[in-house]
Amino acid sequence: MMSDLSKFPTVVVIGGGFGGIEVVKQLADKPVEVILLDKHNYHTFQPLLYQVATGSLEAESIAFSLRKNFEGQKNLRFRIAEVTSIDSAANVVHTDIGPIPYDYLVIATGSTTNFFGNKDIEKYSMPMKSIPEALNLRYMVLQNLEEAILKPSKEERAPYLTFVLVGAGPTGVELAGSLAELRNHVLNKDYPELAKEEMKVYLVDFLPKVLGPFSDEGSKAAEGYLTKMGVDVLLNVKVQSYDGHEIKFEDGRSIPTRNVIWSAGVMGVVPEGVDKASIERGNRIRIDNICRVAGSENIFAIGDVAAMITPETPKGHPGVAQVAIQMGELTGKNINRLIKGEPTEPFKYNDKGSLATIGRNKAIADLGKIKFQGFFAWLIWMFVHLISLMGGRNKIIVFINWVASYMSYNGGSRLIIRKFEPEQLVNKDTQVAQAD
Amino acid sequence: MMSDLSKFPTVVVIGGGFGGIEVVKQLADKPVEVILLDKHNYHTFQPLLYQVATGSLEAESIAFSLRKNFEGQKNLRFRIAEVTSIDSAANVVHTDIGPIPYDYLVIATGSTTNFFGNKDIEKYSMPMKSIPEALNLRYMVLQNLEEAILKPSKEERAPYLTFVLVGAGPTGVELAGSLAELRNHVLNKDYPELAKEEMKVYLVDFLPKVLGPFSDEGSKAAEGYLTKMGVDVLLNVKVQSYDGHEIKFEDGRSIPTRNVIWSAGVMGVVPEGVDKASIERGNRIRIDNICRVAGSENIFAIGDVAAMITPETPKGHPGVAQVAIQMGELTGKNINRLIKGEPTEPFKYNDKGSLATIGRNKAIADLGKIKFQGFFAWLIWMFVHLISLMGGRNKIIVFINWVASYMSYNGGSRLIIRKFEPEQLVNKDTQVAQAD
Repeated sequence: MMSDLSKFPTVVVIGGGFGGIEVVKQLADKPVEVILLDKHNYHTFQPLLYQVATGSLEAESIAFSLRKNFEGQKNLRFRIAEVTSIDSAANVVHTDIGPIPYDYLVIATGSTTNFFGNKDIEKYSMPMKSIPEALNLRYMVLQNLEEAILKPSKEERAPYLTFVLVGAGPTGVELAGSLAELRNHVLNKDYPELAKEEMKVYLVDFLPKVLGPFSDEGSKAAEGYLTKMGVDVLLNVKVQSYDGHEIKFEDGRSIPTRNVIWSAGVMGVVPEGVDKASIERGNRIRIDNICRVAGSENIFAIGDVAAMITPETPKGHPGVAQVAIQMGELTGKNINRLIKGEPTEPFKYNDKGSLATIGRNKAIADLGKIKFQGFFAWLIWMFVHLISLMGGRNKIIVFINWVASYMSYNGGSRLIIRKFEPEQLVNKDTQVAQAD
Repeated sequence: MMSDLSKFPTVVVIGGGFGGIEVVKQLADKPVEVILLDKHNYHTFQPLLYQVATGSLEAESIAFSLRKNFEGQKNLRFRIAEVTSIDSAANVVHTDIGPIPYDYLVIATGSTTNFFGNKDIEKYSMPMKSIPEALNLRYMVLQNLEEAILKPSKEERAPYLTFVLVGAGPTGVELAGSLAELRNHVLNKDYPELAKEEMKVYLVDFLPKVLGPFSDEGSKAAEGYLTKMGVDVLLNVKVQSYDGHEIKFEDGRSIPTRNVIWSAGVMGVVPEGVDKASIERGNRIRIDNICRVAGSENIFAIGDVAAMITPETPKGHPGVAQVAIQMGELTGKNINRLIKGEPTEPFKYNDKGSLATIGRNKAIADLGKIKFQGFFAWLIWMFVHLISLMGGRNKIIVFINWVASYMSYNGGSRLIIRKFEPEQLVNKDTQVAQAD
C-alpha cells in the first residue's frame, strides 16, 4: 500500500515525545519515507504527569494516540517497537520487530530517572517519568491511605501517611503541592478515620533552594507557598539511603516512610550502538550545532537525550519540552535541506521562560526579565498547558476537570484500577501490576 | 472517631455494585453502623463496560469512588477487602483484613463470567465483567491490530483481525456493534496498511435469536442492524472448543482467530460459608420474598447473586441493574424495619423495560408494550445511561466523548497503557499485566 515510498530516502525517528513528533510533522508531504518508532502507541504530555499521579487527571487526558495524531500523513509508518541497537556502519536500527534500514536517523528517546547508582533507592522509591509510573504512584498513595486506616495506632499509621519527595525541581514541587492539597481538602472527606495532621509531606533537595533553575524571586515564592500549605521543605539535605521503611539523610536525620518519590535527576536513554566516546554527563549524546551526533553524517539526537555543548551552553540545554520541540523542528527542516542539497541551519534556542504551579491560585512565572507569582501566574500556567495539550477532546476534558476541582476542592476520581504490588518494585517502568 | 457507632447494630454489606450501594444509601442517618466491603475502591457502571473495552470511554468515566460517593455519610465505614468466608453461626465475615462481626449481612457480590466448566475456553477467551477485564480486552484488540500490520500475508493477518463474540446478549451485541464501527470508521484512518475487508466480526449464539430476552421485534431489528454493519451473525451455533488459535463449533465449522470474547453466561459469586443447599441454577443464592437467604434470619442476598424463585419467576429475576437496585432499596428499608420491630415488605419487581444499543442512531427499546427501534431508541438509550451514571463530572465527560465520537466518526483514545500478555491468560480477573 505504501510501497511507492521505497524510492524516497527513509527517515527513522526513535521516540514519539515532544521532539520526535515535531520531526515527523516537519517531514509531512516531503519526498521522504518516515518511520516513527515508540514503545508505546501514544505521546505523553509529561508536564501534567504529576496530576495523573495524584489522581486529578486521567492518564488518557494527557496522552494522545500517535496513530490518530498523524492520521492522513501518507509518508509515515508508525510501529510499536523497542530498539535493541543501532548499527551506524550498516545504517540499520535493530528492533524487537526486526531490522529497519535508514538513510537518516533521529534519536529522540528522551530521559529516564537517574538514581545515581544507588540500587536500594532505585528498588524502593517511586519514579515518575511515564504514564505507567504515574499510575503506579497513584495506586501506591491510595493503597497506603487505605492501609493506614487499618492500623490501630498513630505510630503504626505514620509511615503510610508520610510522603517524602526527593528533588525539588518542578516535578517535586508540583507533586508536593498536589499532595498537600489532597491532605488539606480531601483527606477528611474520604477518610474521616484519619486526622489531617497525621499526613506529612516532605520536599527534600541537596541544593539550597527549590526550583533550582528558576530566579531567586520565584524560588523564594514557591518555598513560601509550600510552607504555608504545610509542606516541610528540607534544603541542603542529601539522601543517604532508603530501605523501603526509613529514609536516611547524610546529616544523620531519618524519617520512617513507605512513600519515597524520586525526582532528583534524569539521564538520557541512549540506545546500544551509539559511540561511547560521544556520551556526555547525564548520559546524553554530544551533538553539533545542527543536532547531528558527534562523528556521524546522518544520525541526529534531540531533546533530553542530546547535549549541545557550546561556550554559551557548557552543560547543554535544559531538559524541557521547548528545547525538544525546537530541536525537532530544526532537525526535520535540516534533513529536508540535506536531501535537497541545501545548506543546513544551526540551532538557536528561543527560551520562552519557565512556569511551575504549586496549587490553586499559586504559580511561579519566570518569563525572561518579567517575573511574577500567584493567581495571574497560575492562570497563565493553566492556559499554556491547556493549549499545548494534543487534541481538542483532551483540552476540553482537562479544562472541565480543572474547573470541577477548583469549585469543589475535591477533584479527581482516586480509583485503584490495578493494584500496585510494592514487592515487585525492582524495575518499575516494566513493573508487573496485578489486574484486580 | 466513629466509636460512638458501637452501640448500634452493625450492617455489613459485601459489594459496592448497584445493589450494595442502594442498601448503604437507604441506611444513611439511620441508627445503624454500616460497613461496606468491596475488593475495589470504586463502583462500576457495568452497562457501559463495552465502551471501555473498545476505547470509546475511559475507565474512570464509568467508575466512581465509593469513598467519594458516600462522603458525609457518618454511619458508614468503607474497607477494601476480599471476603474469605462467612460464619453465619458466629455472625462474622472473615476477610483478608480480619474478621468483621455483623448483626445484619447483605451479600451483594454480583456475578462473574460462566465458562460452563470449559477450561480451555476459560484459559484463552476474554471475559468482560470488570474494568480490569475491559481494559485487558481493549489492549488485546489494539495489540492484535498492531501485530497484524507486521504480518506479510493476508492469511497470516487473518487470525489477528478476526473477532469472535460468543453470546449474543446485550454485551455481545453492543461489543459487536462497537467493533464493526471501529472497522467501518477507524481502521482505515489508524491503519492505512490494512484493508477494511480484512477485519471480521462474528457474533455467535446457540439460541435462534440475538438479544434473547428481548421481544422478537427488537431481536429482529438488532440482527438487521448488525448484518448491515457487516457483522456475521451465527445463530443456533454451539461452541465446542477454543485453543487460542482456532474456535471450533459443534456443527463442524471453525474459524482461525486470536480474539474470542466470551459473554455467553454469568454465574453468581457466592462467598464460602453460604449453605450449599440454598444454591440455585447459575450459582445463585435462593432468597425468600424479602430477599432473605433461605434458612437465615439476618442474612440477605440481592442482585445477580440472588434467585427469588416464585411461581411468577421460576428462574428468578433477570440479572440486570434494575433488579439489584430495587432489591437493594427494599433490603435497606426492611433492615431498618426489622431493627424498629416493624413488619417487613415483600419484593415487587417494577420492570421498566430493556434497552440495547448497536451503534450510532441504532438501538432497541422494549418498554413493556411499547417497542421501537432506531434513532429515537438510541437517544433514549443515551439519556437513560447518562442520567444513571454516578457523578456530575462523569456525566459531562461521557457526554462530551459521545458528542465528539458522533461528530468525528473517530471517538476514543485507543491507548495501550499497559501491555496485555496473552500467555498469562489463566485467570484474567487477577491477571498479571505488564506495566510498560
